[in-house]
Amino acid sequence: MRNICMKVSYDGSGYNGFQSQPDGNTVQDKIEKALLMLTGEEILIIGSGRTDAGVHARGQMFNFHTASAIPIERWPVAINSRLPDDIVILEAYEVPENFHARRSAKRKTYRYTIDTGKYPDVFGRQYRFHHYRPLDVAAMRQAIVHLIGTHDYTSFTSTRSTKPSHVRTIYEAYIEEEGPFVHVYVTGNGFLYNMVRIIVGTLIKVGIGAIPPERFPAILQACDRSKAGPTAIPQGLMLWDVHYAEIKPGS
Amino acid sequence: MRNICMKVSYDGSGYNGFQSQPDGNTVQDKIEKALLMLTGEEILIIGSGRTDAGVHARGQMFNFHTASAIPIERWPVAINSRLPDDIVILEAYEVPENFHARRSAKRKTYRYTIDTGKYPDVFGRQYRFHHYRPLDVAAMRQAIVHLIGTHDYTSFTSTRSTKPSHVRTIYEAYIEEEGPFVHVYVTGNGFLYNMVRIIVGTLIKVGIGAIPPERFPAILQACDRSKAGPTAIPQGLMLWDVHYAEIKPGS
Repeated sequence: MRNICMKVSYDGSGYNGFQSQPDGNTVQDKIEKALLMLTGEEILIIGSGRTDAGVHARGQMFNFHTASAIPIERWPVAINSRLPDDIVILEAYEVPENFHARRSAKRKTYRYTIDTGKYPDVFGRQYRFHHYRPLDVAAMRQAIVHLIGTHDYTSFTSTRSTKPSHVRTIYEAYIEEEGPFVHVYVTGNGFLYNMVRIIVGTLIKVGIGAIPPERFPAILQACDRSKAGPTAIPQGLMLWDVHYAEIKPGS
Repeated sequence: MRNICMKVSYDGSGYNGFQSQPDGNTVQDKIEKALLMLTGEEILIIGSGRTDAGVHARGQMFNFHTASAIPIERWPVAINSRLPDDIVILEAYEVPENFHARRSAKRKTYRYTIDTGKYPDVFGRQYRFHHYRPLDVAAMRQAIVHLIGTHDYTSFTSTRSTKPSHVRTIYEAYIEEEGPFVHVYVTGNGFLYNMVRIIVGTLIKVGIGAIPPERFPAILQACDRSKAGPTAIPQGLMLWDVHYAEIKPGS
């Protein structure tokens, strides 16, 4: 059996998230249906992780095993022609037998976008959170750096998290401005349930002056969800990319 | 009666164009409904021109007369709260009694966007035409300059055009590249039915080598629709802006 890994981008607006659900309206379900049409095989794909309903991906990764002999470079076009137009396969790689899209992932980056324009930019409104009050981005930058490092991120995860440990490592966390858009980038070795959305909800509190940036270390140390800000709406969130030792991008 | 002019941006994907239709599913119908809810008046708005089904606007302009005393700066928020989220009022101006959004327009700019990426960019796919064969943009640039000036544009309008004259003036016509996106900008004193979409369809023929750029003057002089290329699909087209002597942008 071959082990194939693919990069997929999707507009999550119309789906109940990435991971398969009984109703079938998820990105995974659509990809598995396309693979069935293409190969005749009932293939179960393994995503690098789930994304929630309404969350998007620029570079989600998944792998699967197949007996199909289709040459690797033909896969993206072949699957795309069997997918709805809000899901697009971008790359396909032949990977070692033991490669696993979730367990092999070394680091992941998420991006969250806030539109601070007086009125929302109508083009791509599904990919941003419109926040019409001005934000103090300098204060948000002072706050975000405190997230970098290896910490217990209990304050920044949903109380519904069932993970045995909330310790993760954040390698990079920074903010970029592009006209009225404020992009928050967070890169780590793994993310907890709602983690980026709670980070962004808390940063917005900093941006409007409701939380001073110096309080960020105390919020983190409290290991108490109630000390952080609200969970920002899903549509501003995008799984930006996922890195693996086995895959060189664009190879 | 006050005369008010507004700038509106809209995602045309879900509408049967700008101009009012019996089915009510047009941008004009939605705006007039919002104005009725806000003012209690049955207001007829005058657009700078129609846009076809699926065509978008970054800066469409319209005016209307009203007895309402709402201060000018309050109009955009008041109407936006009564509009679907794919239509956003951006600016409002008090204009002279004789101002007419169509007749007073001095120049209009349209932008058409082609996505030449190997696979379509899923974010904003509704606003671009995905053309996966490479385009010779240098040849397209050689061709497009021949459109500038005052000409009879019969070759570049639908045979269904009912206008008494097809003479118009194009002030500017150029191409900008942004990563895989090719943006075609055309500014003129007025546009004929399907004119920009036929210009783009013909430029794409140049881009793939099917029409040499030197043939553009002959296509124009022929005044024969059959000499030009096909009509490009509507969703790549956006009414970019409209200029008036009476309005200073952002004033």
